[in-house]
Amino acid sequence: MSNLINHIRTVPDFPIPGVLFYDITTLIQDGTLFQEVITQLADKSKQWGKIDLIAAPEARGFIFAAPLADRLGAGLIPIRKPGKLPFKTVSKSYDLEYGTNTIQMNVDAVKTGDRVLMVDDLLATGGTMEACRQLVHESGGVVAGALFVIELLALKGRERIKTTDIETLLQLP
Amino acid sequence: MSNLINHIRTVPDFPIPGVLFYDITTLIQDGTLFQEVITQLADKSKQWGKIDLIAAPEARGFIFAAPLADRLGAGLIPIRKPGKLPFKTVSKSYDLEYGTNTIQMNVDAVKTGDRVLMVDDLLATGGTMEACRQLVHESGGVVAGALFVIELLALKGRERIKTTDIETLLQLP
Repeated sequence: MSNLINHIRTVPDFPIPGVLFYDITTLIQDGTLFQEVITQLADKSKQWGKIDLIAAPEARGFIFAAPLADRLGAGLIPIRKPGKLPFKTVSKSYDLEYGTNTIQMNVDAVKTGDRVLMVDDLLATGGTMEACRQLVHESGGVVAGALFVIELLALKGRERIKTTDIETLLQLP
Repeated sequence: MSNLINHIRTVPDFPIPGVLFYDITTLIQDGTLFQEVITQLADKSKQWGKIDLIAAPEARGFIFAAPLADRLGAGLIPIRKPGKLPFKTVSKSYDLEYGTNTIQMNVDAVKTGDRVLMVDDLLATGGTMEACRQLVHESGGVVAGALFVIELLALKGRERIKTTDIETLLQLP
């Protein structure tokens, strides 16, 4: 694609005043662009060798992680908000600017030694992905890397995630 | 795959007492099975010819709709709970057993004449999918069909969705 940023809509003051939101729905509703983004994600993934599982936070993470899992032949591990997964889960809470957030993963999702790639649409503060990394690690998985469509550099999310294997398709100030 | 039902976990009394929940996470965490399910969905889709867009309710709908969109070269239209889509939306409310539910779609997601396939993991009462159909139809889209992984026959969801083009991979009593 010519330039990814040209296909992402910016919405001011969402979800709260003062925040400029990058809206990926304009990108994914174009079938050709959507395929190109998944191809770029698959190309970036090659550096990590064999991937057994892709872990992704709901809900926008699923949009990119599920096709990537299909392309790579990997399983998909949904990371969800509390109460959404019906089976036994492991949980992790992390700090937000105000308050905390909690995510859950199935207790039997990751087997010891599984190579897990973590995927989400947006790297902002990195809080969700670092919590995801801890869940995978504590379940015995090997975190191969973290892969995002968009990275907001000003929020320094890379510094919060305890892996150096972080790749993003589009870096914005 | 040998038999889809063997790979779906049943969880009693979720989300409320008396309900037997079909948990697709055991299916999607196996990369080979996940690819096979997407292939089966793609095979079913062929009967509808060219598909421009796939519309899918969050969040489990994304897990199957996104890889199918990637396979077919179609765009993906996320149907979301209120307040999740940052741009202007159209809304539809529908009755639940107790109370109502509301879903939203981007106002510019569907163009007049677009052929839209609707995809979700589960056909239960059909309320969500019928609301989705109305949003697509009222936006000028042509509803090609509705495609599900699992159908719970006892809930008669087919009767609620105003299209006869409904396909499911696995029918359960």
